[in-house]
Amino acid sequence: MRLATLRNDTPDGRLVVVSPDGTTCAPAPVSTMQQALERWSEIEPALLATATFPDALDPAQIMAPLPRAWQWLDGSAFQSHGDLMCQVLGMDPIETTVPLMYQGISDKFYGPLDDVKFPDEALGIDFEGEFGVIVDSVPMGTTATRALDHIKLVVQINDWSLRTLAGPEMKTGFGWVQAKPPCGMAPFAVTPDGLGDSWRAGRVCLNLNVDWNGKRFGAANGEPMGHGFHELVAHAARTRDLVAGTIIGSGTVSNANFREIGSSCIAERRGIEVIDLGEPRTEFMKFGDTVRMEAVDIGGRAPFGVLEQKVVRA
Amino acid sequence: MRLATLRNDTPDGRLVVVSPDGTTCAPAPVSTMQQALERWSEIEPALLATATFPDALDPAQIMAPLPRAWQWLDGSAFQSHGDLMCQVLGMDPIETTVPLMYQGISDKFYGPLDDVKFPDEALGIDFEGEFGVIVDSVPMGTTATRALDHIKLVVQINDWSLRTLAGPEMKTGFGWVQAKPPCGMAPFAVTPDGLGDSWRAGRVCLNLNVDWNGKRFGAANGEPMGHGFHELVAHAARTRDLVAGTIIGSGTVSNANFREIGSSCIAERRGIEVIDLGEPRTEFMKFGDTVRMEAVDIGGRAPFGVLEQKVVRA
Repeated sequence: MRLATLRNDTPDGRLVVVSPDGTTCAPAPVSTMQQALERWSEIEPALLATATFPDALDPAQIMAPLPRAWQWLDGSAFQSHGDLMCQVLGMDPIETTVPLMYQGISDKFYGPLDDVKFPDEALGIDFEGEFGVIVDSVPMGTTATRALDHIKLVVQINDWSLRTLAGPEMKTGFGWVQAKPPCGMAPFAVTPDGLGDSWRAGRVCLNLNVDWNGKRFGAANGEPMGHGFHELVAHAARTRDLVAGTIIGSGTVSNANFREIGSSCIAERRGIEVIDLGEPRTEFMKFGDTVRMEAVDIGGRAPFGVLEQKVVRA
Repeated sequence: MRLATLRNDTPDGRLVVVSPDGTTCAPAPVSTMQQALERWSEIEPALLATATFPDALDPAQIMAPLPRAWQWLDGSAFQSHGDLMCQVLGMDPIETTVPLMYQGISDKFYGPLDDVKFPDEALGIDFEGEFGVIVDSVPMGTTATRALDHIKLVVQINDWSLRTLAGPEMKTGFGWVQAKPPCGMAPFAVTPDGLGDSWRAGRVCLNLNVDWNGKRFGAANGEPMGHGFHELVAHAARTRDLVAGTIIGSGTVSNANFREIGSSCIAERRGIEVIDLGEPRTEFMKFGDTVRMEAVDIGGRAPFGVLEQKVVRA
């Protein structure tokens, strides 16, 4: 099952169930995604029972599946991403056995085709292709095994980053505020079942195709997460209850064979250039640049739909 | 003017205007604090015009003034706090000219008399006495000077911290997730005007009396912030729009004469012990312990009311 949120005159939009071919939709029995997540066990059967999809789905009307959330916690679960980021930041590898995670801005997620505004090109504008999960209410202390059942939806995320600000903020130990403005989300939230064999061991085992200004930049696969999403959820819930609608991200999708399959963010390529050439060569995004992200299965289907965003001056 | 939120059957409670003596209240013309903040310029005159306070104010019914927020950004604006924390963590001083700030959990703020649950005493349970401000909608790029006008309310916060987890999380550079469960808030949100002469240069110039298990632990003053709240707001808004209802914290209130006036958190006292005795001696909180926080003016008045919380096992 796939869900989407359409624009109306509220910040939360209105929830619809998407047809199998992604071209039509049906109104959901609750108004918003947040309401569905708060009453998931009660609402899910009605969502699943949707059999007719009377309304055409206009891509321009699609918001983020959850346009704002009470909590967004982003991990960094791909080892090759972490290694390359330390290269580009000139830092030692981070020593930790538990998942890496920070809390980011959650009051706004850009829709899949929204322009994204930044104040200055000099801030090092970068995309980050990620997967994420949305949970229902998760009690403090929930184990990773039990956390799997709390993962109700899977999403595809573009975690916008400002690299000039990221290194200095990271070095304070306080994590990122200025370096992490709002993320974008692909059109469709998909149930784990809806991903079929591509959802394995709490991981989204799909290639994430990333194109920068129309040219393929990366096609990393989501499988090699060092910690699965269920482990990220358990980590987040160790000392807090997770409110229904909490979104948890994988961090930039990255594979060890990055020289063959490319990267899901520019900073990683700059890290490779540091290794290979002694210095970064690829510049960050300019106003007017676009990035397109589409996770595809072996049949070429894109369960989350297509995210394509343009960078504009604020 | 002072506002409070009373329990009802919703997570947001219902907003009331508090009488000058703090014993009675009147219903506000909008249901919730969040609604008031989203329409502040329209709602504030009606709030200010409240002349009669027909209802008794029961302290047990008081929630946090904003029981959940779309965004909570906490600074660390007191230099002596930062210095002592580096002592206790065995870290070098943080080199930065801009404010220190992290994003924390905002989907829940404990009420002033709520018990606070933690999974384990061994996690180093600590309080942090702080001040905070709540803003209306702040556009990206707002200057510090203009940010002053966006500060609509001032609050008093207890930023619960788990010190055993804090050092390792900080050393990853990702900031705190497990180490920072939900905060508590004192009963009343006060307009800057309502603080009179105690609101100066974007700072809350009041002593914050902190008692641990009934014994005075600290009485630091809020004036010596290295950056005023307006500067913290501008820092937060550099690359993002701040949603109405964003709460921004000062970090632990701390003064350079900490040996005379004490501290607003246990970790600071441990830092002093590291300097004076070579090792920390004071243990963190145990289940059943209480902390009481009350900012007072020179007349002994407590504009934010009293926060008093007990630590309990989850």
